[in-house]
Amino acid sequence: MMKKGDKTKTAILEAAKDIFARNGYGTVTMKDFCDALELSRGGLYRHFSSTKEIFVQLLERDKETSAAELAQAIKDEIPAKQLILHLMNTKKKEITEGGGRLTIAIYEFCNQEGEAGAYLENRFNGAVEMVERLLDYGQKRGELLVENPREMARHIVLFLEGLKISSAVVPIKGDILEEQLSTIYKMVKKTEEKG
Amino acid sequence: MMKKGDKTKTAILEAAKDIFARNGYGTVTMKDFCDALELSRGGLYRHFSSTKEIFVQLLERDKETSAAELAQAIKDEIPAKQLILHLMNTKKKEITEGGGRLTIAIYEFCNQEGEAGAYLENRFNGAVEMVERLLDYGQKRGELLVENPREMARHIVLFLEGLKISSAVVPIKGDILEEQLSTIYKMVKKTEEKG
Repeated sequence: MMKKGDKTKTAILEAAKDIFARNGYGTVTMKDFCDALELSRGGLYRHFSSTKEIFVQLLERDKETSAAELAQAIKDEIPAKQLILHLMNTKKKEITEGGGRLTIAIYEFCNQEGEAGAYLENRFNGAVEMVERLLDYGQKRGELLVENPREMARHIVLFLEGLKISSAVVPIKGDILEEQLSTIYKMVKKTEEKG
Repeated sequence: MMKKGDKTKTAILEAAKDIFARNGYGTVTMKDFCDALELSRGGLYRHFSSTKEIFVQLLERDKETSAAELAQAIKDEIPAKQLILHLMNTKKKEITEGGGRLTIAIYEFCNQEGEAGAYLENRFNGAVEMVERLLDYGQKRGELLVENPREMARHIVLFLEGLKISSAVVPIKGDILEEQLSTIYKMVKKTEEKG
């Protein structure tokens, strides 16, 4: 069972997604968190010393969750097609829940915090490695056909970044979101199935 | 020959790219423009009444130039491959000249200016239409093979947006930039040449 302290921490990180997506990075204060979660100042500072620390942990946690999920799925020999559909659904959920605005906050974070560059580079490389692992796995299983998995992984990660950030400013309708997410599978499935 | 007034206006818009890319949208003042261009307050206000007006015209001008260039190239029956290479080189130049930071400024602009949403939607749709026209043209000439040109056009525009904005925070090396831009042509060239 989760300890009470861990529960509070999880609740803060859950709320952080909404708070930063709605307001951007720079204007959010620790008081905003106290108000949103009905926490005392002491209750919040027990877990985090700054909005920056909350922001960094929010991003770290998301990355770790995805990597662990993929490792487990590969161990369980889930078909690659299903893993790609899962990736698409995760992205769809992120986007429909305002992930585009959170992405804008991430770029704002990077512009404001000098040391954020290296952090975001790690995040990008981590995402590319994850997609590459997924493509390699699909090729080994004979489900996917990708000439250059690393190149394709970079392409997919950059495309998803564009889709996410564009969705924050251009209303991308449900059917177009579906259509665009499905281009990923079209690009990597075996040639005989292509077209 | 260009009138002196037009020359000043062009110089302001040229400088605007650098100024907004370096500083973002929100913090730039009319004084920054006077200082950068050694213009009097009156000299600047003769052409623009606000930094917002400069920003909007900067974006409008870029769009019009690209659309006119493509129309001319199609009239001149330039091969589609060459037009795609030109698009790639234009994007490469934009990115290496800091276009990613300008893109972040565009999203910031959208967050700050309520009416910017419709404007950015037009910009996105305009870019998609342009790429679609290029793909249709290449198919008619028998150079390209694209199952669904509109879907592919959206994919390419979203991918380029992701590439541009990521380049502002993740150092994308020259060879990786080349590799990623080349994925566009790989996706649309005729099947017998694919792979």
